[in-house]
Amino acid sequence: MTLYENLAIRLREHIELGFYKPGDKLPSVRQLAKEHGVSISTVQEAYRQLEQELLVEAKPKSGYFVSVQNKDNLPSISRPPQRPLEVSQWEEVLNMLMIRSRTDGVQLQHAMPDMKATTLKPLLKDLSKQNPEVGLSYSDVRGTKELRTQLSRLAVASGCQLHPDDLVITSGCQEALSVCLRAVTEPGDIIAIESPSFYGSMQAIKAANLKAMEIPTHPETGISLEALELALDQWPIKAIFVTPTCNNPMGYTMPEDKKEQLYRLAQSYDITIIEDDIYGDISFQFPRPKTIKSFDTDGRVLLCSSFSKSIAPGMRVGWIAPGRYRDKVTHIKYVSSSMCPVTPQLAVAKFIRLGGYAKHIRNMRLNYEKQRDMLLKAIKAYLPKDTRVSFPAGSFILWVELAKDIDSMKLVEKCRQKGVGFAPGPLFSATGKYRNCFRLNYSEKNVEKREAAIKTLGQVIAEMQPD
Amino acid sequence: MTLYENLAIRLREHIELGFYKPGDKLPSVRQLAKEHGVSISTVQEAYRQLEQELLVEAKPKSGYFVSVQNKDNLPSISRPPQRPLEVSQWEEVLNMLMIRSRTDGVQLQHAMPDMKATTLKPLLKDLSKQNPEVGLSYSDVRGTKELRTQLSRLAVASGCQLHPDDLVITSGCQEALSVCLRAVTEPGDIIAIESPSFYGSMQAIKAANLKAMEIPTHPETGISLEALELALDQWPIKAIFVTPTCNNPMGYTMPEDKKEQLYRLAQSYDITIIEDDIYGDISFQFPRPKTIKSFDTDGRVLLCSSFSKSIAPGMRVGWIAPGRYRDKVTHIKYVSSSMCPVTPQLAVAKFIRLGGYAKHIRNMRLNYEKQRDMLLKAIKAYLPKDTRVSFPAGSFILWVELAKDIDSMKLVEKCRQKGVGFAPGPLFSATGKYRNCFRLNYSEKNVEKREAAIKTLGQVIAEMQPD
Repeated sequence: MTLYENLAIRLREHIELGFYKPGDKLPSVRQLAKEHGVSISTVQEAYRQLEQELLVEAKPKSGYFVSVQNKDNLPSISRPPQRPLEVSQWEEVLNMLMIRSRTDGVQLQHAMPDMKATTLKPLLKDLSKQNPEVGLSYSDVRGTKELRTQLSRLAVASGCQLHPDDLVITSGCQEALSVCLRAVTEPGDIIAIESPSFYGSMQAIKAANLKAMEIPTHPETGISLEALELALDQWPIKAIFVTPTCNNPMGYTMPEDKKEQLYRLAQSYDITIIEDDIYGDISFQFPRPKTIKSFDTDGRVLLCSSFSKSIAPGMRVGWIAPGRYRDKVTHIKYVSSSMCPVTPQLAVAKFIRLGGYAKHIRNMRLNYEKQRDMLLKAIKAYLPKDTRVSFPAGSFILWVELAKDIDSMKLVEKCRQKGVGFAPGPLFSATGKYRNCFRLNYSEKNVEKREAAIKTLGQVIAEMQPD
Repeated sequence: MTLYENLAIRLREHIELGFYKPGDKLPSVRQLAKEHGVSISTVQEAYRQLEQELLVEAKPKSGYFVSVQNKDNLPSISRPPQRPLEVSQWEEVLNMLMIRSRTDGVQLQHAMPDMKATTLKPLLKDLSKQNPEVGLSYSDVRGTKELRTQLSRLAVASGCQLHPDDLVITSGCQEALSVCLRAVTEPGDIIAIESPSFYGSMQAIKAANLKAMEIPTHPETGISLEALELALDQWPIKAIFVTPTCNNPMGYTMPEDKKEQLYRLAQSYDITIIEDDIYGDISFQFPRPKTIKSFDTDGRVLLCSSFSKSIAPGMRVGWIAPGRYRDKVTHIKYVSSSMCPVTPQLAVAKFIRLGGYAKHIRNMRLNYEKQRDMLLKAIKAYLPKDTRVSFPAGSFILWVELAKDIDSMKLVEKCRQKGVGFAPGPLFSATGKYRNCFRLNYSEKNVEKREAAIKTLGQVIAEMQPD
C-alpha cells in the first residue's frame, strides 16, 4: 500500500466514525503533511482519492470539507440471487421504447442528453452543411480514419494509449456491446453484471443466448469485488460486463483503485472484461476518471462507448477498443451491419478536432451537476421521507428507491395518465427485481416542468400508500 | 396447369429444339391465339413468362423475337459438395473490403451502384437540407412511420400486401440478414444457400455459428429445387437463404412459378425462407418480378432489402418484412444496434413519396441494361474464347467463369498491380470453390475505362495461360 492510500484510509475512517461531520472543514494539506510526516503531494493525492469517493469536497481557496451529501438516504447495496439466470423483461423494455416518441407531458424515462445546448451548434451546422455525396459510399470496415484518429486522442484523457487501428466504429454503443458479447462468448456462457444494470445490455445478453449472473453492487463504489470473487469461484463465468464510470442507472463512479483491482481479478481468473464507458466523458470530475481499459496490459478489456450521451443518440456513432479481440470484433461488426455511415463520423471528428467537443462536455458537465442538485432537492421536497436516492458522480440519470410496498410498475401506469414518465426498476434486473425503484432523467434545463412532475409523482405515491 | 403455362411450355420446347433460332421473329399473338384456340391475353401471358426467362424479347411495334443471347457460354450449373460445411474465406473477404477506399485504377470488385445519376439530385438536396436537430433523438425501435408507410406502398409492385407495422427498418440489408438469421436459428443449425452466394450473407452464417449447405444452382433459373429437396430429405435444414431476384453474383431471376414452388417446398418441410431482395427494384423487367414473399400466406418468409443498390449503400437504410417472426426480429434488431438514424429515413421516405425514387430506378434500369450489354461485348472481345459469363436479368454485376486452370486469386493479385480490381470467385463459396471465376461490376457509365480494364484483364489471363 502506498503512503497516500494509507493516509486516505485513516481520513476515511475519521469521517465515517463521525470525527468530522458533513460540512466540517478538514485539516489543511500542510497541517496533515506535518502531522503524518509525508509530503504535500501525498496528502493532495489522498484528498483526491476521497474526492473521487465523494466523501470530501474541495472549495477553491478555502480547503477541503466533508461532503454534505447525506449518505443515509443512499439506496441499499443490491442483493440479487447468486446464480446465473436467463434475462426476462423484454416486454417491459419494449413497452417503454414504444412510447419514446410521445412528446407531451414530462418524459423522464429516457437516458437522453440535453440536445438544445448552444455548444452543439458548430456540429449541427456541420452536419447540415455536409456534402451528402461523401456519405453515399461504403467506408473502411472499421470506420473512417479521421474519427478513429480523434478517438485515439480523446482516449488519453481516460488514461489509454490507443492506436487508431485499435478502434472499430459501431452504430452506437448498443452495437458495440452486442458485438463484444458475441466476440467473447459462446451460447450458454455466463456473464457477470452489476445489479441493477442497463436493460439494453441485459437484452443483448438474452439475445446472444447467454445467462446473466447479477452481482451485489454498492450504490457508491459499484460491483462488489468480494461477491464477484465468490461467484467466480462457484461458476464458470466467461466475462464481466460493467459500467464503472457514471453507472447507468445508479450514477456512481467506481474508485480508480477498485477499477484496477477488478482488472487484476479478471487477470487472475483469466476472463474478459467488457467495459461500457458511454457516460465517462460527462463525469462531474475533471480530468475525467480513468477507465478499467487504462490498466489493461494484456488486451483482455473491450472498451465500448459512443457519443449518444455526450452529444446525441440519433447520430449512432459508437466505438470499440477491442484489445486482443480485434479480428473477431471486426468480423462480427462487418456481418452485423457492414460499415457505418460516413457523414456523422466526419462531422464528429471535426467537432473534436476543432475543440468544440471539449467545450461542449465542459458545458454539459457543469449543467448536469446543477440539474442533479436541483432534482435531489425536489425529491427531498415532494417524495416520501423514506425515499432513498443515488448520488450520481456524472451523467444525467439517477436511481430512486421507494418503500418496499410501492410497485413502480403500477406507479408508472398511474403516472403515465398524468403525463409523467420514468423508467421502472424491473427493467434493470434480469428477473424483474427492483419493483420499488425507478430511474429518472435530469438532462433538460426546464427545472419548473421537472419539479412539477416530481410533485405529481409524490402525490401519486401518496395515493398508493395505505394510510 | 393453366392454359398460358401450357402454351409457354410448347413455345419453350420449340425454341429449345431449334425450330426458332436466336433473332427469329416468333408468331404474332393473334396468330397463336387462333392456332391454339386460346384468348389473346393467354398468349400474352405465355410470352410474358418466356420474356421473364429471357428466352424471348419483345420489340415495340414489331412483335416477339427469340433472344439473341448466346446461351452456350453461360456458366455451368454449380456442383458444390452436398454436405453442410462451416464457412471459411473471411481473410479473403476482409482483404477485399480493406482496399475499398482505393480510388485510382478501375475497381470492378464492389457491388456499388452508379451514384452520379442526375435522378438522385432531389434526394441529395434533401439530405443536405435536412434539419439536423430532427436526427438527434432516438426514433421508434422499428424505424420511422413515414418510411415504413412508403415501403408498404412500394411492396405492392413486388406482389406484397404489407402493413407499415409489419416492417422493421435496419442498418442496411447486412443487418437485416444478420438479424433474420439469428431470429430463426440456433447455433449449429444448417442453412441451405445458393452456390455461388454473396460473401456477406455467408459470413453472417459463420458469425451466427451456423453451417452452410450449398445447393447446386442454375445460372439462369437459380437454386435447383430437385437438389434442394434431396438435401431437405437428408439433412435437418432449418432455413433456406436465397437471393432469387437479380441474384448476387450471377444476376439471374428465378422464374415466378419456380419461386412459388420453392415456397411450397418450404411449407411442406415446414422450414423458413430468408429472401434477399436487395437488387429486386433494379430488375430490367418492368413491372419488377414478384418476390417469394408475395406467395407467403403463413408468414414463413422473412424478406430483407435495402436502398444500398437502388440508391446508395452509405445511407445504410434497409428493412425486414419479418412475417411471423416480427417480435423476435424486433428484439434482435433492438439489441443489435438500437434504433436507426432518422435523417436518412425521412429523406428516402420523401424521395419515394414525391416520385423521385420511381424515376431514379427507371433511369438506372435502362442504364444498367445498356452497360451490361457493353460489358458482355468487351468480354467477348478481350477475354479468352472459352470464357463463360452470366446474363444478368437486373442489377449491375455479372459472373465470369474462366478455363479451369486459371486461378482468380492469383489473377486478382496480378491485376491489382495494374490498377484493375474484381471480386475473386472463392469469396462466393463457403469453402473457397470457384477459383476460376470472378464477379465484375458494370454500374459506372465510364465505358472506355471499363473496356480498357477488361482488355488488361485479358492480357493478364493470356500471360498466365501456358502456351
